[in-house]
Amino acid sequence: MAIGTSPLARKLSAFVKLSASELVVLERLHERRKSFSAGRDLVHQGQSEQAAYILAAGWVVSYKIQPDGSRQIVDFQIPGDFLGLRSVLLHTSDHGIEPIVDIEAAEVLVSDLLRAFAETPRLATAILWAVSRDEAMVVEHLVGLGRRDADARMAHFLLELGARLSLVGMGSRQSYPCPLTQYHLADALGLSAIHVNRVLRKLREDGLVTFRDGVVVFDDYEGLVALADFDPAYLDHARPLLP
Amino acid sequence: MAIGTSPLARKLSAFVKLSASELVVLERLHERRKSFSAGRDLVHQGQSEQAAYILAAGWVVSYKIQPDGSRQIVDFQIPGDFLGLRSVLLHTSDHGIEPIVDIEAAEVLVSDLLRAFAETPRLATAILWAVSRDEAMVVEHLVGLGRRDADARMAHFLLELGARLSLVGMGSRQSYPCPLTQYHLADALGLSAIHVNRVLRKLREDGLVTFRDGVVVFDDYEGLVALADFDPAYLDHARPLLP
Repeated sequence: MAIGTSPLARKLSAFVKLSASELVVLERLHERRKSFSAGRDLVHQGQSEQAAYILAAGWVVSYKIQPDGSRQIVDFQIPGDFLGLRSVLLHTSDHGIEPIVDIEAAEVLVSDLLRAFAETPRLATAILWAVSRDEAMVVEHLVGLGRRDADARMAHFLLELGARLSLVGMGSRQSYPCPLTQYHLADALGLSAIHVNRVLRKLREDGLVTFRDGVVVFDDYEGLVALADFDPAYLDHARPLLP
Repeated sequence: MAIGTSPLARKLSAFVKLSASELVVLERLHERRKSFSAGRDLVHQGQSEQAAYILAAGWVVSYKIQPDGSRQIVDFQIPGDFLGLRSVLLHTSDHGIEPIVDIEAAEVLVSDLLRAFAETPRLATAILWAVSRDEAMVVEHLVGLGRRDADARMAHFLLELGARLSLVGMGSRQSYPCPLTQYHLADALGLSAIHVNRVLRKLREDGLVTFRDGVVVFDDYEGLVALADFDPAYLDHARPLLP
């Protein structure tokens, strides 16, 4: 991979203008790349785990098994996101991680992070922000579960995903590829699959957004933003915070 | 404040065994201490804000105003927690922050963090974990909103708060002081104040936990853990992860 072209490098560049030597340190974190197959848990809930990963290619779902055995989707991870960073801290993982498609991920040990942060503290700051921002989006999403109606919830979800993908160069305000099934959407949004189907049809017929054949197309981006009361501020990184 | 006695130092010590010089760097982050009065927003939702804070004393509530004008409590912050770290990144704050009691907080600028991380990258790792863990708890809490019944939700909330306070030396498995009102609990747990009252009475009558006169007393810690299906693993830091 060429220096500075990894999804994580693109994402962090929105926060910090990384120098050539900082980009080298960042790419070195991607050295131990591994492949994982779709549908086979990368991390089981409750598993003892000492490695974290940087997702380099593919999509992943994080979920929690509830005491009643049902599955709650906590978030989806896309390239540039960390996987299982918390498992490094907690003695066991507090959630399961399952690839939705075949993925590639780079294994990152605590010692790797320490070495990288020692070489470039600006990288530590950028990663702190990225992780903090990602979690903030999960919070926003979960808060929305209880408050928004189904149409607004779906609209917000599709917009947020688009904004995250845009940051790593995998989407735009026009469209993005999306391998999620209606079952994923249902589980993540607390809706039935039939309800998901109905909501998607309504949004399409209203000329706002079309999700079909693995592609989300924004037919009326501003209209969708208004429906979802979505704050697209983090799409508009005019300049990195740290020069 | 003596070196290494700040709540943040205590909290991070669970993750990383901090050296004397690392503790000095950490305490230096507390230099610009400010006082804020109860009930007056520290940060307004939507405010442009370039400073973050480390909470040194007191309790704070973070909330989001929903499009319909209602208020959703996202989390409570206790000493040792960061306030508004995300606002430094996002151009505007995505939530409001209001002191519940009079508080003291140390202002931290991006440049302060960068300098501290440059001096001790282990500190960066520890802060990354602390922030990541805190957000994980919010996620856990929000996931629980939809799935647990009211008794289990209250039990989980009181146990989690106890675990967090214990980490900074402000609580134990026996009891902790708690300035939250029944209205705070209601807002955070998605219940009415009357329902909160009823749930607390039931838990007390069942001999599990008593919340009265600003103190939470665990009458039967193990019983409460079982009711809440609470994983107390993060209370049991036998040793810091990094020696």
